[in-house]
Amino acid sequence: MSGPAAKKQRTQPQYELLYHPGIPGRGEYIRLAFEAAGVSYSDVANEKDTGYDEVKAAMDPKATNIEGGNPVIFAPPALRVPGAGKDGSSPLLIFQTPNILSYLGPKIGMTPDNEADALHVNALALTALDLNNETHDTHHPVAPIKYYEEQKNEALAKATDFRESRIPKYFSFFERVLKGNEATGQGKYLVGDKISYADTTLWQVVDGLKFAFPKEMAAREKEFPLLFGTFYSSVKEEKGIKEYLASKRRLPYSMGIFRHYEELDRE
Amino acid sequence: MSGPAAKKQRTQPQYELLYHPGIPGRGEYIRLAFEAAGVSYSDVANEKDTGYDEVKAAMDPKATNIEGGNPVIFAPPALRVPGAGKDGSSPLLIFQTPNILSYLGPKIGMTPDNEADALHVNALALTALDLNNETHDTHHPVAPIKYYEEQKNEALAKATDFRESRIPKYFSFFERVLKGNEATGQGKYLVGDKISYADTTLWQVVDGLKFAFPKEMAAREKEFPLLFGTFYSSVKEEKGIKEYLASKRRLPYSMGIFRHYEELDRE
Repeated sequence: MSGPAAKKQRTQPQYELLYHPGIPGRGEYIRLAFEAAGVSYSDVANEKDTGYDEVKAAMDPKATNIEGGNPVIFAPPALRVPGAGKDGSSPLLIFQTPNILSYLGPKIGMTPDNEADALHVNALALTALDLNNETHDTHHPVAPIKYYEEQKNEALAKATDFRESRIPKYFSFFERVLKGNEATGQGKYLVGDKISYADTTLWQVVDGLKFAFPKEMAAREKEFPLLFGTFYSSVKEEKGIKEYLASKRRLPYSMGIFRHYEELDRE
Repeated sequence: MSGPAAKKQRTQPQYELLYHPGIPGRGEYIRLAFEAAGVSYSDVANEKDTGYDEVKAAMDPKATNIEGGNPVIFAPPALRVPGAGKDGSSPLLIFQTPNILSYLGPKIGMTPDNEADALHVNALALTALDLNNETHDTHHPVAPIKYYEEQKNEALAKATDFRESRIPKYFSFFERVLKGNEATGQGKYLVGDKISYADTTLWQVVDGLKFAFPKEMAAREKEFPLLFGTFYSSVKEEKGIKEYLASKRRLPYSMGIFRHYEELDRE
């Protein structure tokens, strides 16, 4: 079990994250929400020797039904919550990163109470996750299960468009959201005056992009002063996040969604 | 104003869909949820001469703030609900297709009451929308704003992988979900025993794929008997959907997400 806040732990269910071991990946969006909330969770594949077998069993590509009447899972990450299933005793097992975030948000204090704000947080997290997906496609524009080297020419074309057209479109959008909320959020929060899962999700995408495209990001920083100057630095120092980033639980980027290929970055 | 059910109309807010005119696109996922629910809505850009100007004004790419404290919009579709904003009098304005669907679902009867079932519906709708996005990328694998003809070679490679690897992965998944719920849903519903926005969303993706890749779909029908034999035909006959598909409100596919290019289809 990881995460701080033994205090909250006693009143929370035992949340279990099911994801691939050894990489941040899409699991990181779930981890950051828990860590910022100070809510304990189990990162099954990274914490137990047999953990990844459990994860793979839950994603069996031949299964039609999972314990407790949960439908089968398309892809990790998934979240298992013992005792929260439909019958009140089986585990609840859900998947899709934004679905897990919008489920957890109100329960762990990472979604604003106001309905309108909560909807805006969800839209912004979904948009940051779209940028995450487009980042993945820069190194895998043709076939997700083939090697990068087999689609390198297409990747060069895709990454160029991504850097020149998509990055400024997304960053301009988030800069304007931060600007629109500046009186309340001081450039530190996308919605309202405290951290939400939209903030942790966008932060992780920006952090991953800084790893994958360091030259492009360095060249663009000044164009988006709130996003890089205020938001990025501030979320990094948030209670829970700061401790997490310094811990062993924070895994290094490698061959996941955020990959650094020098030839795909700005020259 | 479109949609049937004048009865429900009186007790529902005036929902306004903001989307491009003339194409089904991502707006269709919202339309189908309303139509299956029998809840009236206004399709602003298709119904008023000045409608598209209103849509474009709401998506102003330079704006930082929108009426009523709503953040700016990244891309259509968006939903406007007069009087539902944070202050109780301004409009609520939200975007991101899955965000709009999960917001509307419980209000218009397209989400199951049970929390576990509602979460499963949301995950399945998100997964169908991922398939929608991958379909778009078959004709635009490099640059969303450039012409197909400028990325045709990459599109041929992408569409081949999509047909040979992604389509069977997604369809096998949804077939197994239908199988797992067969005792309750009779192959007609993904979750539970009545239609949800997961069903209308998956149906639209399958329908769009039948338009875009007719040979591939015809060749695969027998592999997925519940999905094609039961689910697809049954949703098409659902109350609300049947009438909608026969109406002028149902727009033909053309140059949107679902496009038919013979060279991208199976030979």
